[in-house]
Amino acid sequence: MDKDTISINIQKKLEKLSTFTATPGHGCTRLPFTKEARQAADFIKTLMAESGLKVNEDQAGNVIGVLEGEDTQAPALVVGSHYDTVINGGNFDGLAGIVAGIEIAHLLKENGVQLKRNFIVVGFCDEEGMRFGTGYFGSKAMLGQITLEDLHQYKDKDNVSVYKAIQEYGLVPEDVLKAKQDLSKIKAFIEVHIEQGPVLDQKKVEIGLVECIVGIQRFIVTVHGRADHAGTTPMDMRIDAVAAATKVISKIPDWAREKGDGTVVTTGFVKVLPGGMNIIAEEVQFSIDIRSRNNDNINDIVAKIRAELDKACKANGASWEMHNKLTIEPVDLSENMLSMLQKSCETHGYSWQRMPSGAGHDALAIGQSIDTVMVFVPSKDGRSHCPVEWTEYADIAKAVTIIYDLIVDMQ
Amino acid sequence: MDKDTISINIQKKLEKLSTFTATPGHGCTRLPFTKEARQAADFIKTLMAESGLKVNEDQAGNVIGVLEGEDTQAPALVVGSHYDTVINGGNFDGLAGIVAGIEIAHLLKENGVQLKRNFIVVGFCDEEGMRFGTGYFGSKAMLGQITLEDLHQYKDKDNVSVYKAIQEYGLVPEDVLKAKQDLSKIKAFIEVHIEQGPVLDQKKVEIGLVECIVGIQRFIVTVHGRADHAGTTPMDMRIDAVAAATKVISKIPDWAREKGDGTVVTTGFVKVLPGGMNIIAEEVQFSIDIRSRNNDNINDIVAKIRAELDKACKANGASWEMHNKLTIEPVDLSENMLSMLQKSCETHGYSWQRMPSGAGHDALAIGQSIDTVMVFVPSKDGRSHCPVEWTEYADIAKAVTIIYDLIVDMQ
Repeated sequence: MDKDTISINIQKKLEKLSTFTATPGHGCTRLPFTKEARQAADFIKTLMAESGLKVNEDQAGNVIGVLEGEDTQAPALVVGSHYDTVINGGNFDGLAGIVAGIEIAHLLKENGVQLKRNFIVVGFCDEEGMRFGTGYFGSKAMLGQITLEDLHQYKDKDNVSVYKAIQEYGLVPEDVLKAKQDLSKIKAFIEVHIEQGPVLDQKKVEIGLVECIVGIQRFIVTVHGRADHAGTTPMDMRIDAVAAATKVISKIPDWAREKGDGTVVTTGFVKVLPGGMNIIAEEVQFSIDIRSRNNDNINDIVAKIRAELDKACKANGASWEMHNKLTIEPVDLSENMLSMLQKSCETHGYSWQRMPSGAGHDALAIGQSIDTVMVFVPSKDGRSHCPVEWTEYADIAKAVTIIYDLIVDMQ
Repeated sequence: MDKDTISINIQKKLEKLSTFTATPGHGCTRLPFTKEARQAADFIKTLMAESGLKVNEDQAGNVIGVLEGEDTQAPALVVGSHYDTVINGGNFDGLAGIVAGIEIAHLLKENGVQLKRNFIVVGFCDEEGMRFGTGYFGSKAMLGQITLEDLHQYKDKDNVSVYKAIQEYGLVPEDVLKAKQDLSKIKAFIEVHIEQGPVLDQKKVEIGLVECIVGIQRFIVTVHGRADHAGTTPMDMRIDAVAAATKVISKIPDWAREKGDGTVVTTGFVKVLPGGMNIIAEEVQFSIDIRSRNNDNINDIVAKIRAELDKACKANGASWEMHNKLTIEPVDLSENMLSMLQKSCETHGYSWQRMPSGAGHDALAIGQSIDTVMVFVPSKDGRSHCPVEWTEYADIAKAVTIIYDLIVDMQ
């Protein structure tokens, strides 16, 4: 099968899958345990079956297709990604990786390759966490990291718990714990995903070989000042929360740049209270999201932020507090598989570059326990999580080609 | 009459007036042209009449009491302030100045003083602008600065125009224009007001002699960046509106301090869009409120802000716009009256200091056309526009005493 045919196959599947959306005409909205999720999962099962996979849906809503090898007990090679989306998202985030896996199975079958070990394609359920504010549900269930308490604790905006949603989806909530896989039966996990950033597209590089998934620490900082009249309070008698907070926020990007290794820091949320143009701010809340492949860099920036908050608040009498909202350790991906993929890129003449993943993926949860690698394909203008999200089908086909080589080599 | 009696008289009047509120138990809420405003205006008329003033309500809702002098055609001395409040405000802002005026009339009568010229006490309508987003309505009407278009243009949150509100209040909107006074018939205007700032209270000074009302320039700045993923967008590929805006905001207070003459600058409003913790900010809007007795200082800070916006936005590819929302010229108050009040403070043994007014007042509108002076009395902890707003009645009595002297001297 030539690359053009692979590309057209991928296009057909993705275009059909894009119709399973709660917001037709406004991008793809496919929240977990909904009608759209059911439609997509069922269609994925059909595609898997057509490609010769033995199909199963596990107790957590993950769709699993197995191409049996000669030794079905040997640790398997798994390719997968997720079939849920954000609200008004795109057609590629997640599904590109599932369709790539199915296409690889299809190619193996077409080419009459009988693998020694099982090749498994997984469509994970609820990676985005958009409905229940969690994320990695399906992959965590496979890793045995979901508890019954989790199912009751997390609720959607209509106060429907995961427990209730799973029931309504036709599954048995108590059985989610049975979705846990025997990890010794998995040799490696490979995820194809759109980059969701501008690097490959801007540099015209066809394949991103993901060396690591960055660690994340996320904080909410609150600076407490005192509300006073903007006209009648002299500069040296005010405790201005905006003045103190902006002294800190304005310095943070430079600390990220100094690291020079792709470390990024973002303040995307700022709230000022009471917010009147003629009232000195009583309180500023702001977010800090720090990501780096190197945990030391994250910790160093956190220390710098704390020191600067001390300094800025001491200068005007304000006080501050800083609460951790998220901590994710960086995960190094498999150097062995990266080398093989790199070699394959060179064989096929694809341009490639090593890069970190700045976003989390199912590979993040899985990579902590199993040899894992990720392949990024370019996102046009770096756009993602929006209806204009776009990746060339031919670029996904290139990823399919090199992962096909990897599977054959590792069988 | 001794100072204690004056103090008790003031207390009685202010306590009764505080009952005319739309929010009992939650501070004073007396918006213009409401039932509460009518109750307060009628009670002020009663108090004026009791102190021997000839009472009148003008076409704009201002309450006017005249103590006739020997020559009723000679330019009059006017003492006044406003009887409206903000929402959930205090019992002193505005009314302290009206009650002080009535108390002076009462003292003149008690002491059997027959002035040569008329002494007039005014309770202005709608200084705060809380209902219609305007302000200085009553004083501007007296100055002939209100037009019929104004009455139709400005509306409250329930979409009731000033025109309609005036009608419902029992006045004739078209007649507001007739509230214009012949300014040649006014020799001087004197306003007693609570400081609404912390200076007098912190320094334990009894009387603030207001040399000027500061000029104000107010702006909304919008910085335009680009929304991108906080994890997947390298630092050198992002157009982060927060990074650019905070570089500027953080520097502004220092520029005010450098002026060293009481110039103040405040950023009390900041809005970040879209506001997600993991999304680089697409847009930041923020306010700048600059106040100074010296217009050159205001203009210089505006120039510095523009230059810094250019610099910060150039550094990361953002763009900016800056819109003027308010421009008020500074007003110098009467040096002649200030000297007389200062002398009177020394005679009575009151501590005093010269100071600017950082807030606008009816004296701001009037001071542009008529010799004007303001006397500030201490605000406990600088608090105002809130239920805990507090000024010692004895401090208002001190202001009454020195202004009584001024009226007698200037008669």
